[in-house]
Amino acid sequence: MVYSLIAMDVTIRTANEGDVSLILELIRGLAEYERLGHAVTATEAGLRQSLFGGSSGVEVLIAEALGEPVGFALFFHNFSTFVGKRGLYLEDLFVKPEWRGRGVGRQLLVRLARLAIERDCGRLEWAVLDWNEPAIRFYKRLGAQPMHDWTVFRVDGDALQQLAVEPAETR
Amino acid sequence: MVYSLIAMDVTIRTANEGDVSLILELIRGLAEYERLGHAVTATEAGLRQSLFGGSSGVEVLIAEALGEPVGFALFFHNFSTFVGKRGLYLEDLFVKPEWRGRGVGRQLLVRLARLAIERDCGRLEWAVLDWNEPAIRFYKRLGAQPMHDWTVFRVDGDALQQLAVEPAETR
Repeated sequence: MVYSLIAMDVTIRTANEGDVSLILELIRGLAEYERLGHAVTATEAGLRQSLFGGSSGVEVLIAEALGEPVGFALFFHNFSTFVGKRGLYLEDLFVKPEWRGRGVGRQLLVRLARLAIERDCGRLEWAVLDWNEPAIRFYKRLGAQPMHDWTVFRVDGDALQQLAVEPAETR
Repeated sequence: MVYSLIAMDVTIRTANEGDVSLILELIRGLAEYERLGHAVTATEAGLRQSLFGGSSGVEVLIAEALGEPVGFALFFHNFSTFVGKRGLYLEDLFVKPEWRGRGVGRQLLVRLARLAIERDCGRLEWAVLDWNEPAIRFYKRLGAQPMHDWTVFRVDGDALQQLAVEPAETR
């Protein structure tokens, strides 16, 4: 497809409260792509409160092309004790399917790398589904390394409730 | 070892600026255990600034037994877009080797689960080295699920610098 090779002006801007419904639409788009659409319980009101209701620490970039929103990146700071510095953690990166292959994702990542350097962050990190081979190839081309020897563990739902009510006494 | 089964009073408290050298000692202890001692470049001055020099968002719990510090947990908030809520991310959990097997780690995790519930967090998450089988068994007993289908990617060092200086123009 020749069109995908044509240079295109992409603008990246910081999201504001007026973008909440757009952000939720993009989150849903990402979840569908990740085959996790059923997992989205976020609402517009909840996101407005979480993202713009105070000092959430969560930041969102919107990518626009031809005046239309085409993708987003949502990120926050994490912290590396070994380095003793903040890092940037990219929670979501999504480009609408019809806008892929035109450098939008790359531009979002370049912007994040710049923010990481400007803020003296040691690292930029994110998680990728293992079956998402196009994304993995893309990230490796950008110089990212897979942390293959680590696995994320999660407690949520009933297990979290149950852990929280365990007796505080030593067992 | 019978002693390890004797009930022991463990106190968990929030760390303060006076704990910086202790926190660095515990970070180094964890790094040695993880065979990553070479990766620790954090300094006391740097940690003081990072953890207590403003609104870092990073929190530290210290576990004490018999009046002595025996372990710590360092954590911060992350954010789940799918759930639309903050979560708790446990960056470091460490109990001094001579104090293991007495419920100290469990008490730190119970405290974190309570904080997660109190703060309306959807999840408590952390990363584990795949060879650390005692830790993995321990976490599974607590109800944690390994997120086996995700891999964390990282850009740091020269690769981060290089990504940041890529031309912003569409390629």
